[in-house]
Amino acid sequence: MAEQFYDFVSIQLDKNSKASLYTQLYDCLRELILSGKLGHGYLLPPVRKLASFLGINPGTVVSAYKLLEQNGYTYSRAGSGNYVAQIAGNAQDGPEPALIDIDLEIFENKSSAGDRPNCIDFASVMPTPDLLPIDDFKNVLIEVLDRDKGFAFGYQESQGFYPLREAISLYLKEQGVKAQADNVQIISGAQQGIDIIAKALLNFGDYVFTENPTYPGAIASFRSRGAKIIGIPMENDGIDIQELENKIRSFRPRLIYIMANIQNPTGYSYSLAKRNRLIGLARRYDAIILEDDYISELDFTDTPMAPLKALDRDQRVIYLKSFSKIFMPGLRLAFLLMPPHLVAKVLAVKHHSDISTSGLTQRAFDLYLRKGIWRKHIAAIHSIYWERYQTALNAIEQFLPSTVICHRPRGGLTFWLSLPEGLSAIKIVQEAEKRDVFLLPGTAFFPRRPPDRFLRLSFAVAGSEKIMQGLKVLGEVITENLQAMKK
Amino acid sequence: MAEQFYDFVSIQLDKNSKASLYTQLYDCLRELILSGKLGHGYLLPPVRKLASFLGINPGTVVSAYKLLEQNGYTYSRAGSGNYVAQIAGNAQDGPEPALIDIDLEIFENKSSAGDRPNCIDFASVMPTPDLLPIDDFKNVLIEVLDRDKGFAFGYQESQGFYPLREAISLYLKEQGVKAQADNVQIISGAQQGIDIIAKALLNFGDYVFTENPTYPGAIASFRSRGAKIIGIPMENDGIDIQELENKIRSFRPRLIYIMANIQNPTGYSYSLAKRNRLIGLARRYDAIILEDDYISELDFTDTPMAPLKALDRDQRVIYLKSFSKIFMPGLRLAFLLMPPHLVAKVLAVKHHSDISTSGLTQRAFDLYLRKGIWRKHIAAIHSIYWERYQTALNAIEQFLPSTVICHRPRGGLTFWLSLPEGLSAIKIVQEAEKRDVFLLPGTAFFPRRPPDRFLRLSFAVAGSEKIMQGLKVLGEVITENLQAMKK
Repeated sequence: MAEQFYDFVSIQLDKNSKASLYTQLYDCLRELILSGKLGHGYLLPPVRKLASFLGINPGTVVSAYKLLEQNGYTYSRAGSGNYVAQIAGNAQDGPEPALIDIDLEIFENKSSAGDRPNCIDFASVMPTPDLLPIDDFKNVLIEVLDRDKGFAFGYQESQGFYPLREAISLYLKEQGVKAQADNVQIISGAQQGIDIIAKALLNFGDYVFTENPTYPGAIASFRSRGAKIIGIPMENDGIDIQELENKIRSFRPRLIYIMANIQNPTGYSYSLAKRNRLIGLARRYDAIILEDDYISELDFTDTPMAPLKALDRDQRVIYLKSFSKIFMPGLRLAFLLMPPHLVAKVLAVKHHSDISTSGLTQRAFDLYLRKGIWRKHIAAIHSIYWERYQTALNAIEQFLPSTVICHRPRGGLTFWLSLPEGLSAIKIVQEAEKRDVFLLPGTAFFPRRPPDRFLRLSFAVAGSEKIMQGLKVLGEVITENLQAMKK
Repeated sequence: MAEQFYDFVSIQLDKNSKASLYTQLYDCLRELILSGKLGHGYLLPPVRKLASFLGINPGTVVSAYKLLEQNGYTYSRAGSGNYVAQIAGNAQDGPEPALIDIDLEIFENKSSAGDRPNCIDFASVMPTPDLLPIDDFKNVLIEVLDRDKGFAFGYQESQGFYPLREAISLYLKEQGVKAQADNVQIISGAQQGIDIIAKALLNFGDYVFTENPTYPGAIASFRSRGAKIIGIPMENDGIDIQELENKIRSFRPRLIYIMANIQNPTGYSYSLAKRNRLIGLARRYDAIILEDDYISELDFTDTPMAPLKALDRDQRVIYLKSFSKIFMPGLRLAFLLMPPHLVAKVLAVKHHSDISTSGLTQRAFDLYLRKGIWRKHIAAIHSIYWERYQTALNAIEQFLPSTVICHRPRGGLTFWLSLPEGLSAIKIVQEAEKRDVFLLPGTAFFPRRPPDRFLRLSFAVAGSEKIMQGLKVLGEVITENLQAMKK
């Protein structure tokens, strides 16, 4: 054995295994990297040499190397080879925590923006307190307390207050989704929904597919279960379905986490063709889809699309919807609509996660839905945000260089901006912050080795005037950076 | 190799390992049982023969066999040997779910009791709605909504509303526990606290020690993390500390979950000597103690004991306290007081579990604590429950045969009854239920192979008259069963 292969002697590939050779090789190399046996900066052997040492096709090594790089375990230098990247954690000590920190930082950023009165906040997607329906909600709270007395604070069944589950299934039918109260599980916000599904479905080492970029809080929950996460690129008509098909065969993910309408952070929505293919692939390869309906209420087109769940004919899709995420963030209330065969399992996990969601909140929100106040509230903020959306879009055209690419989303609270080649989004964010304009670099939304060229710009907090001011500053910062690059 | 040892050829013991030989052997045999290689009813080899086959001391085999039996993997028949027990799940498919079902059934039982107006409910520990402080809480809710407006529904920091964390640290100082707001984490009920600590501290395969019997919801959370659970017997002055010391050396548990004051379900409290030894052992073997303060407000003696946490000089104890479990179950509010080095980790887990606990609930409860209404409420129910405690104790003496043993707990809402040899607690519960008296068999509180001779009798729901009636019925059922046994 040549000495240069000493580090690879532990690799054993099984040609009779269900898993393809390249994913086996990928897993072996990944383990060697995570265990620290191949340290930061280690130069992997040339493709042909490793292939010959292992007695496999060079194409197999190429595929494994490519996957390592995509998932951030290695990086390549043109003409010089593949090197092991710096790895934050060690798989044996539980999955890498780096992403949780990024996620918390988002919120810290937000607070620090909030503390500076002259700043312009394009980072937060939380509504400002003046947009929250405080009086209406106070009235339903009082009505519930007078009606239910001690029962409002008593034991609450884990699946949720039955009348609320009924009201939700009526609400869903209006969205084109067939639903029964029996298949609805009430939860304490969308994040808990993701976490509960992770606990109910994932075992250590299972694969999960997500969109890339995606919501970092979901990645944190999947990692906490010891899942292996594979990001599939987003395109402006939905996930890269060809790439999904290529990967699903080899990895057989248990779960696919997606946002079909107005994705966070890109704002992209799936075409009907991609919706159907996604469901077909999930059926063929026996995967469950978790659809996070982040913000479809804020579709500004004349033809809003139904959730993916509306197309789900053979119970492949879990539908997750929050009532609080955007509209009353402190309320912590959401629900899961589940395939019937998962109801009992998810209920058991909810029970050992926190027994039940606050009964008082559930009872008050039930009334809020049934009285139609929710619909009224959504209509009110819809028109406020529609105005800001247009203002922001105009300001982007007016103030940003034409080389900054902005896709026009169907709705939502954010724009996803792609910077010209050579600019660093992190640097732009830092420089804008010095001029009191806060926004997020896209890096926060990529689980691994994020590209440094995207910005997420939210208009949830800033009014029209501040949107114009802030985009003017951002335009100046980008232009200055472009000029500095030319020198 | 003799053919009878064919099944054991995979066992490999490492004399140089840190783990003792008997725990290694225990782990190997356990794996063989869980993988199904040794099926239900399989007769294990005689001690001396297996010892000789493996080249180890017979005492090592005896210890491993004993542990297998204690943890429910085998049962012994006098003079005939050790047999593999029926195992509910398979470790590979995630830890056995049986216990979660038992736990849910507890609540179902409770509801079915509630639906029958003539029944007597000794099962539930939930207060009846008339005991809940509904008007006081409504007033603080309205005060908070008027004071904080939209902020009451806005974004809530994950560690919890700072003024509430401050109010809690003041409250703790009165209980003899030094606390700072920075080390307090607000959570959505005690169950979530246990679940978050499990997620923050436990990796797949870690050992957890619990009292035996214990709270089943805790076991469910530990199992969900893939932890191996070892129950240490409870004695009426606290955990069997000698057994704990014997086991801690070999298993090096990451976590020890205990209730030092008025344990659930036994009602036993730890002596001061055992408290100190427990903390000393945790220090020596680098374990973290999770102290669940279930119900110490309801100590009916003149000399209530401080939490274990009050003795924690080198940050070994996480203190968990619910404000809602017993007094306002639907509220979902509790806190963790943590060693400073765990604060960031627990905060990250809280964040990916459900972002934060309802801000409105936190703000209202903050006011409730600061205005002293909590103290007033506890004083009121203290006297109601003290009366029921005495009534129940008298009725037990009057109506139950003297062979039923009842330890007198310092307080709480339940009595733990031990039936005479030969009676089945499950049968007694079933027969009492036919006569409209509901109580819980102790079996629900043992993680494995529960002894069928304990009853947990709660006086949280029944008033004095019903307590007398119900215990009269229970006494009749037990006496009839004793007589039937003699025949």
